[in-house]
Amino acid sequence: MRTNIRHVSRSSVTKTSWALLLVLVLVSCSNAPKTPAGQPAAGAMGDPLPSWNDGPAKQAIIDFVKTTTDKNNAKFVPPEERIAAFDQDGTTWVEQPIYSQVLFVFDRIAELAPQHPEWKNKPPFRAIVTGDKIAMEKFTLKDIEVLAIATHTGMTEEAFQPIVKDWMAKAKHPRFDKSYPQMVYQPMLEVMTYLRENGYRTYIVTGGEQDFVRAYAQNVYGVPPEQIIGTALEIKYQYNKDGQGVLMKEPKLLLNDNFSGKPEDIYLFVGRHSKAAFGNSTGDQQMLEYTQAGGGASLEMLVLHDDAQREYAYGPAQGLPDSKVGTFTQALYDEAKSKGWTVISMKNDWKRIFAFEQ
Amino acid sequence: MRTNIRHVSRSSVTKTSWALLLVLVLVSCSNAPKTPAGQPAAGAMGDPLPSWNDGPAKQAIIDFVKTTTDKNNAKFVPPEERIAAFDQDGTTWVEQPIYSQVLFVFDRIAELAPQHPEWKNKPPFRAIVTGDKIAMEKFTLKDIEVLAIATHTGMTEEAFQPIVKDWMAKAKHPRFDKSYPQMVYQPMLEVMTYLRENGYRTYIVTGGEQDFVRAYAQNVYGVPPEQIIGTALEIKYQYNKDGQGVLMKEPKLLLNDNFSGKPEDIYLFVGRHSKAAFGNSTGDQQMLEYTQAGGGASLEMLVLHDDAQREYAYGPAQGLPDSKVGTFTQALYDEAKSKGWTVISMKNDWKRIFAFEQ
Repeated sequence: MRTNIRHVSRSSVTKTSWALLLVLVLVSCSNAPKTPAGQPAAGAMGDPLPSWNDGPAKQAIIDFVKTTTDKNNAKFVPPEERIAAFDQDGTTWVEQPIYSQVLFVFDRIAELAPQHPEWKNKPPFRAIVTGDKIAMEKFTLKDIEVLAIATHTGMTEEAFQPIVKDWMAKAKHPRFDKSYPQMVYQPMLEVMTYLRENGYRTYIVTGGEQDFVRAYAQNVYGVPPEQIIGTALEIKYQYNKDGQGVLMKEPKLLLNDNFSGKPEDIYLFVGRHSKAAFGNSTGDQQMLEYTQAGGGASLEMLVLHDDAQREYAYGPAQGLPDSKVGTFTQALYDEAKSKGWTVISMKNDWKRIFAFEQ
Repeated sequence: MRTNIRHVSRSSVTKTSWALLLVLVLVSCSNAPKTPAGQPAAGAMGDPLPSWNDGPAKQAIIDFVKTTTDKNNAKFVPPEERIAAFDQDGTTWVEQPIYSQVLFVFDRIAELAPQHPEWKNKPPFRAIVTGDKIAMEKFTLKDIEVLAIATHTGMTEEAFQPIVKDWMAKAKHPRFDKSYPQMVYQPMLEVMTYLRENGYRTYIVTGGEQDFVRAYAQNVYGVPPEQIIGTALEIKYQYNKDGQGVLMKEPKLLLNDNFSGKPEDIYLFVGRHSKAAFGNSTGDQQMLEYTQAGGGASLEMLVLHDDAQREYAYGPAQGLPDSKVGTFTQALYDEAKSKGWTVISMKNDWKRIFAFEQ
């Protein structure tokens, strides 16, 4: 066990009733054909960030890249130290009305139910299996964890991957009716591509389960499995019936990659400070702080969800009610302002949010 | 806590009396000037492995590289999957008469003793501080752990790095009177270079403490911090007196990177099977098994220490007494033979062991 904070799963999930979420969950199962992920717009010839409006956020990114890749600049960053860390939910793709991984868990329970007749009488499974929305509204964090563990463990890592890939191809966002890979923010894909073209290695540093994200991150973000740092369950080396070594996913938390866990795990995996970090909530606060603490040039950015029309608007930082996911508090907003971090206004800074917008 | 086996530090360390080891420890402190690590011999123009004698081991390496980098070969391995894992102690450098990290721990206790007058009356510190060799002979694994924790924790990761670097520059091997970076096996440096030149990423996968190895691995092996997978202590994000976020090394084991821990941690960090793996003891067995289990082309090699004159000879696999470090059992030897792994005879396969040999 690590520090206490590492063993509290995204606490914001528990804040609100699950009612609305679950209604949406129940309509989320679909069989739509696989759709390709949003692709970075071609911008190599000119503007590397064509989906960004001119303004301080876009300028901060360009200035950071130019400064840190210019050998004559005092803040030049050697290629081996060019590490950029991206939170996922709410930072690189939509997290409303609920994290995609929670949708996956609920869908997966429904899919597995025929093989588990005992679930009909066993909470919290019973609520999903029987469609008991009132019981689902009362789910605790512990219930969600029980469901998540039932869907993520007791199989090899190799067996888990295609299950996630299959779900990613089928599931659709309840409001936009698009697959999750299509719910990626086009401006952030452009930032990732721009950074990589300038020698940065882009890492996803997410509260999501590591293997879940690894299953699609190469296709969706161009980020390979070794650059996914996530909440990790224990894995156990065992021998299968053929005497071959396999890795079983175990029902025990190893790393909770949220809050303090983010800088801790960046150090565990990379052994270096990140030089750029992108987040959107209090769960990313320490990652941005640690990025800045490395000294020299650094870039810290927070996505503010202030566009109810094209995406969502939520969080105290804009005078809106707190959200059940991705809490951007006033305190975080104040810290950003006092430390010179850049707040990205989705409404003002992003010309286009999704690749499917024309 | 992970599986039981992960929480037993290299059990082989406890097998034998520490008598001989400690005598050697006590003469190991030195102030020799920093010497450069052995450099890979220039072999790009012709033989990529000039310190290897022709034979099945050398041929296995060359065949593996040629096969996996030939697009027309059915066993071609795409560049992103080219992962090679190297155990360190006894595989890439000398582990006799005792692991360098244990020497570091003892030296460090002696160095810190003036700041800790209480150690004079506190076992196990007392034995080192007072030079009580009889008490040191009786050290248990628990004693060693207490000493290791006292020297590796309670400071930031940034404070720890220069301490290790300083020791690496000063300490000398008790028999060879060379610094530890000079105790690297030249043939293995050549293999690492050859693999990297062919698109492989070389990882150190070691029972040694991750931060300890990270402090010198770039200079010694050309392996960057993000490719060091080791036994890891917990790290905790905290604020220093200036309110800046720092990572403190905590006295608690997070990952024990031995035995089953090796494939488990390769998966945790890399998310892929290693395609090549190099070891020398039962602590590497599961890593080699898991490498082979990935299917397709793979390379599994075990270093057999059978050269008492130029290095050391030890282990039941050659009819010699078991060693206190790096146990190459007869069972491991038999597994290697039955599975087609390659056993490297230091005596026969290596033309030159150390760069300082002329």
